[in-house]
Amino acid sequence: MNEFHKEASECSMWTEEAGRLIEKARSLGISLAWDRLEKQSPQCNICEMGLSCAKCVMGPCRIIPGLDRDKGVCGADADLTVARNFGRFVAGGSASHSDHGRDLVEVLWEIGEGKTDAYAVKDEAKLFRLAEELGLDAKGGVQETAKRLAERLGADFSSFGPGLAFLRRLPRARLDLWNKLGITPRGIDREPVEMLHRTHMGVDCDPVSLCLAAARVSLSDGWGGSMCGTEISDIIFGTPKPNKTKVNLGVLRKDQVNILVHGHSPVVSEMVLLAAADPEILEKAREAGATGINVCGLCCTGNELLMRRGIPLAGNHMMTELAVVTGAVEAIIADYQCIMPSLLDVSRCFHTKFISTSDKGHFPGAERFHFTPQNARELARQAALIAVLAFKNRDQSRVEIPVEPVEILSGFSNEAILEALGGSPEPLLDAVKKGTVRGAVGIVGCNNPKLKQDHHHVALAKELIKRGILVLVTGCATGAMGKAGLLVPEAADLASPELAGLCRALGIPPVLHVGSCVDNSRIIHLCALLATALGVDVDKLPVAASAPEWYSEKAAAIGLYAVATGVTTHLGLPPLILGSPIVTDLALNGLNKAVGAAFIVESDPFKAAELLDRHIAAKRRDLGLAAGNGKVAA
Amino acid sequence: MNEFHKEASECSMWTEEAGRLIEKARSLGISLAWDRLEKQSPQCNICEMGLSCAKCVMGPCRIIPGLDRDKGVCGADADLTVARNFGRFVAGGSASHSDHGRDLVEVLWEIGEGKTDAYAVKDEAKLFRLAEELGLDAKGGVQETAKRLAERLGADFSSFGPGLAFLRRLPRARLDLWNKLGITPRGIDREPVEMLHRTHMGVDCDPVSLCLAAARVSLSDGWGGSMCGTEISDIIFGTPKPNKTKVNLGVLRKDQVNILVHGHSPVVSEMVLLAAADPEILEKAREAGATGINVCGLCCTGNELLMRRGIPLAGNHMMTELAVVTGAVEAIIADYQCIMPSLLDVSRCFHTKFISTSDKGHFPGAERFHFTPQNARELARQAALIAVLAFKNRDQSRVEIPVEPVEILSGFSNEAILEALGGSPEPLLDAVKKGTVRGAVGIVGCNNPKLKQDHHHVALAKELIKRGILVLVTGCATGAMGKAGLLVPEAADLASPELAGLCRALGIPPVLHVGSCVDNSRIIHLCALLATALGVDVDKLPVAASAPEWYSEKAAAIGLYAVATGVTTHLGLPPLILGSPIVTDLALNGLNKAVGAAFIVESDPFKAAELLDRHIAAKRRDLGLAAGNGKVAA
Repeated sequence: MNEFHKEASECSMWTEEAGRLIEKARSLGISLAWDRLEKQSPQCNICEMGLSCAKCVMGPCRIIPGLDRDKGVCGADADLTVARNFGRFVAGGSASHSDHGRDLVEVLWEIGEGKTDAYAVKDEAKLFRLAEELGLDAKGGVQETAKRLAERLGADFSSFGPGLAFLRRLPRARLDLWNKLGITPRGIDREPVEMLHRTHMGVDCDPVSLCLAAARVSLSDGWGGSMCGTEISDIIFGTPKPNKTKVNLGVLRKDQVNILVHGHSPVVSEMVLLAAADPEILEKAREAGATGINVCGLCCTGNELLMRRGIPLAGNHMMTELAVVTGAVEAIIADYQCIMPSLLDVSRCFHTKFISTSDKGHFPGAERFHFTPQNARELARQAALIAVLAFKNRDQSRVEIPVEPVEILSGFSNEAILEALGGSPEPLLDAVKKGTVRGAVGIVGCNNPKLKQDHHHVALAKELIKRGILVLVTGCATGAMGKAGLLVPEAADLASPELAGLCRALGIPPVLHVGSCVDNSRIIHLCALLATALGVDVDKLPVAASAPEWYSEKAAAIGLYAVATGVTTHLGLPPLILGSPIVTDLALNGLNKAVGAAFIVESDPFKAAELLDRHIAAKRRDLGLAAGNGKVAA
Repeated sequence: MNEFHKEASECSMWTEEAGRLIEKARSLGISLAWDRLEKQSPQCNICEMGLSCAKCVMGPCRIIPGLDRDKGVCGADADLTVARNFGRFVAGGSASHSDHGRDLVEVLWEIGEGKTDAYAVKDEAKLFRLAEELGLDAKGGVQETAKRLAERLGADFSSFGPGLAFLRRLPRARLDLWNKLGITPRGIDREPVEMLHRTHMGVDCDPVSLCLAAARVSLSDGWGGSMCGTEISDIIFGTPKPNKTKVNLGVLRKDQVNILVHGHSPVVSEMVLLAAADPEILEKAREAGATGINVCGLCCTGNELLMRRGIPLAGNHMMTELAVVTGAVEAIIADYQCIMPSLLDVSRCFHTKFISTSDKGHFPGAERFHFTPQNARELARQAALIAVLAFKNRDQSRVEIPVEPVEILSGFSNEAILEALGGSPEPLLDAVKKGTVRGAVGIVGCNNPKLKQDHHHVALAKELIKRGILVLVTGCATGAMGKAGLLVPEAADLASPELAGLCRALGIPPVLHVGSCVDNSRIIHLCALLATALGVDVDKLPVAASAPEWYSEKAAAIGLYAVATGVTTHLGLPPLILGSPIVTDLALNGLNKAVGAAFIVESDPFKAAELLDRHIAAKRRDLGLAAGNGKVAA
């Protein structure tokens, strides 16, 4: 039993909202992630330490130093085995984000080619601004410029391209450092592929070199694939502006057809929104006995719609199974990433239809659609119709919507933040210099059934704002913060007096929702903007990141690109690296020397807050700034 | 103890050549792969079945159906878990080959740009022929055409390129089938990246879809990265022609500086050859007391030099550690892939210098060079000088070269085969139609300490030629065949009378060495040529492939691209898929329906020969051909 399992047995592991539905699921014999974790416990300690290798059939090997199994058949020791596994782990996460980014480049390309009438450029100003920023000819029309931009960003996926377009956003010092370390990413697809190569038996046998290569892979995500995803999504679907909406399972409607869009991409879900507003389909919903169609989000597809459209968020990662258990969901329309395979099984226990939409994400037993920019409008209509028909099968006596929704304010893109500041980062920098805002922490990432649900997100955020530290939030952290009432201006009451004053003056919460997990690119971009404005490298800023309840390979990639960009990052659980003294020391210490930032692993959110506070205090000192107000670390 | 371990305990697991050095190693306390395998045994049965998952930190999970652990925390069952693991396994192999191919594209690019004086186009005719084949403007000079070709093949690595150039080599029917199945590869880098994405939690949750996607990944290797590697290597370093040379550890010279080039790429090793012939360096070797410098090959870098330059091959995968144990090796100059990390440890027990040359393959403690097309000549000289200096430290009393070398005939590129046939495949097809050659089997792939060394390669080849089946050999199978005397025309004595007659008439062995492991692209290209000439799809040909002693992810990728191309493939050990009934059935049966070919898993080479013979007999029947001569399966 590891420390996380210990915690599980010592206190309730879920929120009250979840608790009622978990009880219901148990009474129905439905297995949930928590149950499966219990059955999987104790988990394999060797895999957990990163010491298993199944990358060839001389193996599989288990490296157990001291037990006469200190090397694999090929001769790999513990450090190498862990580094190889970690390299692939990060590559898995980076590739996921980047393959998502590729989809957006493709849609923009189709727009540029005039080959889709489902999609168009919504934020023309951002299109032209970005084209200019990247040095493209932006004198043509929208379509022509869209094509140029798609070609330019498409070239970033090539290994023989001109180099990643967005690297120009970085301070020169950071780029010089990456070049010196040999970790400047060369191509968005090249880096994960090279990592697969490096981790093949007998290629890169140096754990330090592998870790640096993993950093390069992650940078191809953060400054490549993810940034393409964010920026192009804004161009096509609109750059987010502050908007009010609601969060938690209370957003489901007993009287309406509930459609949950799940996954990570806005490409399909935006079309579902259109379909749900189609008078013909609404009429069919009314014929089926519903008063309307209610589209809500799950996970990061939910975050995408929340940011841009104010669509309510039904839940984050650990709430996805429970959303179906409400019995009120007619359809889950899924694209990709973090969609638990178990959702099919849970859906089968109800009238819920499960609809897959991506050719790269199939689910056995699902209604299977393959969306393209050409057929998207029509397929979205078909999917919505399936949901409408399913409403007739809903058993209202089985419906349990356990809570009332909570209000939140979302939509804080960098553009929106800068606009709120009057168009330049100076007022924010001034506030930082004065200590009104002592620093900022991005709280990002998933839920994990090993940790008390949402608790680590919320406790950490509350501790930080109390200390005068602004929090930016993305991904599944959003749902947690929202339900805890931290995403409304009134949450300023929980912040230090100075931060509270600023929030009240601007009418913003002390915890700003900045997007989905690809939108962590907004945070590193903002850091680069601030560093450039201050004339320093990113690692000099009084900022940090945290993934207190992470579970996914993508979170590891995000953490690593944050660190490699110069942003020290806290993790609530360790990656699967503890079997290697070299890799563990590099992650916790060595990276500081290399890139000016490193990982902090701490499962207690209060201790984590203290450590992040100290980190920010030290950065302030190094910048010659006063400690600042709020509760200040010793 | 699985069946392979059982075999290990029941008979001697190595050749006599190896045996003497293993004894020496043991007397010196040096651990070898066989020893490490013993210490790793029993291996984890769950990993071996493909049922472990460490792709997120909700896990790691072990799926044990029937033991209340039938699903991972995310809900993945045994089939999905195995399919995810297999997808990544194949992606690892494909990415390795393709990243190797990329290096050749880069060198050709530099030649085209006039930015290297170390490399030039050696086979200009092939350059122009290939440019024309790919529809490029081939009217310019060598440099201009090199640049055009590099750009065209470089575009194949992009995900927004024109589509893989070499797909035009396939029969239309095969391409139509791939398009129907959705497995036509779109970009060399895109496919492994998409596989990483698909296998992230909650993306592709359908084991069948994942296996088809794995096939697509493998095709991006076979018809993409590997084919680029082969074709460009030929252009730069010359297309192989039959040449006589020698094989086994007897090629090491007691009186000379022995340099072993190890890995997979010809890029560095060709420069080492030049350096070893440099009068100045030779003079230094003489000053050090040596009569010369002897460059020999290991593994597939060895195959590359063997094919094009007739450089002797010191050994294959399982001989690499033992080569150092001879005490006669001054330096191992390594690029990448299959270079056991243990080689460093073994080298340290002798005077052997270990020199790494690739920026993607570091080895702690190695002399570390980073070769580029610009510095390659100079660094190769420096590396050769290190070897020369090390000669002074050689303790001749510790030198043991256990065998005399064996002659072989190498260099059977497709061009050489066609030239031997008078310029067209017709004579070969006629021989096949008549039954003089009943069919052909490519025996490829590695060694594996779980299997009796070389035995499976050799026994299978002997059985096949006896049955009138021509054998093509690549990779580590080469060393095995060579040592067994199968790579000389005299081996015709072991073939069926008809096959023997043909071999004698042409002066060729019944086992033809066609290259390194990327050169398996030569075999599928030849299959496509023959199928096109016959007017049938590839799966109709009386051919098969076999990897009797494979160990590597690359071998799995090769096997899968062979199968997806229509070539049934035998494996001497199963991949790590047996935990999934769906994936196992698909591999052994289902793929037959989908792509007209499937895997055969059989550890006994005699039984395997029988199965391959039956397969070929059936294909002959389906083509309306007589059974043919030789020992014919019932």
